Amino acid sequence: MRTPGIGPVTYRQLIARFGTSAAALAAVPDLARRGGGKAPPLRSRDDAEREIARVEKLGAKWLALGQGLYPRLLAELEDAPPLLIAKGDLNLLDRQSVAIVGARNASAAACRFARGLAHDLGQHDLIVISGLARGVDSAAHDGALGTGTIGVIAGGIDVFYPPENEERQRTLYERGLVLAEMPPGTEPRARHFPYRNRIIAGMSSGTVVVEAAPRSGSLITARLAAEAGREVMAVPGSPLDPRAQGCNQLIRDGATLVQNAADVVEAIRPFASQVRSPRAPFEPILEQLNGHDALATVEELLGPSPVPVDEIIRLSGAPSGAVQLALLELDLAGRLERHAGGKVSLRE
Amino acid sequence: MRTPGIGPVTYRQLIARFGTSAAALAAVPDLARRGGGKAPPLRSRDDAEREIARVEKLGAKWLALGQGLYPRLLAELEDAPPLLIAKGDLNLLDRQSVAIVGARNASAAACRFARGLAHDLGQHDLIVISGLARGVDSAAHDGALGTGTIGVIAGGIDVFYPPENEERQRTLYERGLVLAEMPPGTEPRARHFPYRNRIIAGMSSGTVVVEAAPRSGSLITARLAAEAGREVMAVPGSPLDPRAQGCNQLIRDGATLVQNAADVVEAIRPFASQVRSPRAPFEPILEQLNGHDALATVEELLGPSPVPVDEIIRLSGAPSGAVQLALLELDLAGRLERHAGGKVSLRE
Repeated sequence: MRTPGIGPVTYRQLIARFGTSAAALAAVPDLARRGGGKAPPLRSRDDAEREIARVEKLGAKWLALGQGLYPRLLAELEDAPPLLIAKGDLNLLDRQSVAIVGARNASAAACRFARGLAHDLGQHDLIVISGLARGVDSAAHDGALGTGTIGVIAGGIDVFYPPENEERQRTLYERGLVLAEMPPGTEPRARHFPYRNRIIAGMSSGTVVVEAAPRSGSLITARLAAEAGREVMAVPGSPLDPRAQGCNQLIRDGATLVQNAADVVEAIRPFASQVRSPRAPFEPILEQLNGHDALATVEELLGPSPVPVDEIIRLSGAPSGAVQLALLELDLAGRLERHAGGKVSLRE
Repeated sequence: MRTPGIGPVTYRQLIARFGTSAAALAAVPDLARRGGGKAPPLRSRDDAEREIARVEKLGAKWLALGQGLYPRLLAELEDAPPLLIAKGDLNLLDRQSVAIVGARNASAAACRFARGLAHDLGQHDLIVISGLARGVDSAAHDGALGTGTIGVIAGGIDVFYPPENEERQRTLYERGLVLAEMPPGTEPRARHFPYRNRIIAGMSSGTVVVEAAPRSGSLITARLAAEAGREVMAVPGSPLDPRAQGCNQLIRDGATLVQNAADVVEAIRPFASQVRSPRAPFEPILEQLNGHDALATVEELLGPSPVPVDEIIRLSGAPSGAVQLALLELDLAGRLERHAGGKVSLRE
C-alpha cells in the first residue's frame, strides 16, 4: 500500500486474488509486464519495518481492513484504506458515529452551532467525527470532547496541520482519537484532503454539513457520503448569507435539512444496526480461470471514457475473474484509471 | 352567500342543483326543514342591492366564480369564494402569480429579502400576491409595485388593517389590485384570516414563505397551497434564528427550498399553462333522482367523525345526486359539518 501506483482498490484486488501480501508482491512485476508497462517500484521490507517501528514509537496503532477494530462502515467502501494509523482511545471505533464538517472560515454563529450540535449528539451516545481543520471541524471536536470524538487528518499521525491545532490534536490523542492514512511525517498536500474526506464520510452513518461554500471540500465529503449510501444532512441558512449557499444547495439536491441533534438522530437511525455487522473485506476470487486470458479483449474494449467494469465483463464474454485479472495487469502497468462507481478507463 | 350558515361549498352545491340563485333561495327553507332544522335567515333582496350599490360607489367591481376575470386557479378550489370584490387594475388577474407570505414581525433582513424577491419575480412577468399585513407582506407588495401586485384582505374592500397600511392599500387601489371576500365595512376578525389565506394560496401557482413562526398564519397558507396542489416554497434560515423555524420545518416536510427568483420560476413552471385553462365552476347535477330519497340512509351513515362523501355514496347504495341532496338538506338545517378534503360529519 505504500507502493506508488497501487491504490486501495488495486490493493484489495491483489489481496483478493493472491491471498497474502507476500504472494501479491511477488506477482506484481509479472502482472505489470503483461499489462504492457514497467513494474511499479516496490517498497522494501526494510522500509515497511521502519514505518512499523516508527508508528509504535509514536504510541500509535495499526488498524487493518477487515480485522479487529477497523471501522465496519468504512470497510464497506470499495476504496477503503487497507491500513489506518490510530492514536488515542480505540474504544471510540466501536460506536455509531456522525461526521460534522464545514467551512474553515465559518462564521462565529456556525462554529457555535457546530459545537452545540456535537455536544448534543454526544448526549445521544454518538461519536462525532471531523477533520481537525479550522472553523467548523475544530468546533465540532471541542463540543464532543466529553463524549467521544475522532479527528481524521490528511497528513501523518504526528503532523500538526494547521499548526494552531497542535494542542487540539494532542488533546484528541489523550481524550479522543486521531486517525491517519498516510505514513508518519507526511505533510498534508491538497490531493490528500479528498482521501481524508472519504474516510470521514465512510466511517460515519451520516455527514452533517454546517456552512459550506459552493465547490468546497465539505461538499466533496457530502458527495462521498451520498456515494457510500450514507445520510447527507445540511444546516440551512439565510440566502442573504453567502456562506449558507453550499448547504442550501445540498438541501435542494436532496440532503436532509437538520436543525438540531434530534433531527440528526432521526435521520441516521436506519444505520444503527449496520455499525456492528462485520463483512468479509476481501472476497476471494474463487472462479477457476482455466488459463482463460482476457487481456487483449479487455484492452480492446477500454478507451479514454470511463466504463463500468460490469459492462466490460458482459461485452468481453470472458469469466469475470479473467477480466478482473486483466484490469489488474493494466492497472499495475500504470495504464488503467479507476473512477468512482466502479468505472475504469485507459490512460491516454 | 351572505346568508349565515351557507358557506362556499354549500353555495356551490345549491347552484349546481338549482341552476340559479333565485331557484336556490326559494328551495332553501324546504331543504332545511327536510334536513330536520330551521331555515337559515335569508338576506333580503334589499340587503343585496344595498351592498351592490355600495361596492359600486367605492369604485370596486364584482368578480363572480366561473365568469370573466375571476382567477382561474382560485376557481379550482372546492371552497372558492362565489364572489370577490376587487378594486384596482383588473388586468393583473389574467397573469401567472406567486404568493409571498411571512411573519408580521419579520427581521429587517427577511423584509429586505422579500422585497428583492418580489421585485425579481416581477422581472419574470409574475404577479406577486400577498395579504397587505405588516412585515413580509408589505415588503412583498412594495417590491412588486412596479410590475404588478395584488393584496388580498381579510376585511371589507374599504377597511384598512393594520391602520398603518392605509397608504399602501390606497397605492394598490391605484397601481395594483385589492381583493376582498367580505362585504364592505367588515372589520377583519381572527376567523377571517384563514379564509383570506385560502384565496392567496388558491390564486397562486405557488406560495413562498419567508420567515414564519411555527403555527403561524403563513404556515396555514402554505398548507392550503399544498392542499390545492400548488407549489409550496420556503426560504431557509439559520437554526439559531427562531424566526426561521417555521420555514425550515416546511422544507423538512417537503417544501421546495428557494433562495432566489430563479428557484421560484423553476418550481412553478408546471403551472404556467393552467392559469388560462378555464373550467366550468358549477358542474350541474344531471342525474335523475326518480324520487329516490336518501336522507334517512345518509343520516344513519353519518356520525361525529368526518367521513369522505364518496364513502357515504358507496355505502348508501343510493345515486350520488340523491346523497348530495340529502347532505345539502342536513347542511342547510345546520346539522352537517364540512371538512377539508371533501369530508363531512354530523354536528353534535
